[in-house]
Amino acid sequence: MPIKLILVPLLLIALACPVHAESIVPPAPNGITLPGGYQNWRLISSSYREDNKTLRVILGNDQAVEAALRGQTNPWPDGAILGKLVWKEARHPQWPAALIPGELSHVEFMIRDQEKYADTVGWGFARWLGMDLKPYGADADFARECVACHTPVKDNDYVFTKFSTLPR
Amino acid sequence: MPIKLILVPLLLIALACPVHAESIVPPAPNGITLPGGYQNWRLISSSYREDNKTLRVILGNDQAVEAALRGQTNPWPDGAILGKLVWKEARHPQWPAALIPGELSHVEFMIRDQEKYADTVGWGFARWLGMDLKPYGADADFARECVACHTPVKDNDYVFTKFSTLPR
Repeated sequence: MPIKLILVPLLLIALACPVHAESIVPPAPNGITLPGGYQNWRLISSSYREDNKTLRVILGNDQAVEAALRGQTNPWPDGAILGKLVWKEARHPQWPAALIPGELSHVEFMIRDQEKYADTVGWGFARWLGMDLKPYGADADFARECVACHTPVKDNDYVFTKFSTLPR
Repeated sequence: MPIKLILVPLLLIALACPVHAESIVPPAPNGITLPGGYQNWRLISSSYREDNKTLRVILGNDQAVEAALRGQTNPWPDGAILGKLVWKEARHPQWPAALIPGELSHVEFMIRDQEKYADTVGWGFARWLGMDLKPYGADADFARECVACHTPVKDNDYVFTKFSTLPR
């Protein structure tokens, strides 16, 4: 079969498929790829950090939210992913006492897989910086920094976030 | 037909249907009922208010999020609902510089229907207080207070919240 008879349909398929921005984001140095569709995940909690002046929203994939609803968060089950969206603070122009999300600082994730990520307390850590989603960390050892920072909450399965209280 | 032949199936149906907490929440004094499933809506933004020490997460129903993604937020289209979840601040026990959601203060909503809510700038306002979701306001006039407070953002369709920046 002439090569162009193979290439032309492949090209047409490639042109017909929308390129998702996430598919071209480089993986973190430990090989973790950006979880797709995290922008649409459900709410777990939020926070404001006075030390580095950032607003944070913590979302969870379906497995994480279902686990939280069942109270099964110590340990979180395999498959659960927590996503933290972090913005530098800005001040609301019409309500100066309100701090609101300004420039995106980074998005970061904790992916629960006890076996796969046994070397990093059962969590796969990854972070991407800014709107161009630059992977954080020079090499795979960056995750040691994550584990060290999360060690104060070892008794909470290394997770700072608690499921926020809502009538359900 | 004997009455019990009618009542018994009705009773069985009643027992078979789970009672959703939201179905027994009293409506706001202007007749607005609590939007069901708002806990699962997608993220619009968040804020921290220094003046009253509250953390807020703003979620949107599908119409609101789709409108925001299209940049169609001035005006927002009919059917869009913005939900604001408001917690009193608490301090993270293992990270004292982090403020996190403590006790639930209230949940409040802006429901866009230009015709139905023409008297209140095209938005239906409603708020429920605390975990027992007590409707806010002595009578339907409470919504005047909402409109007055939102008037500084009249040029933004009376909405304080802006869609938070994320790679999409």
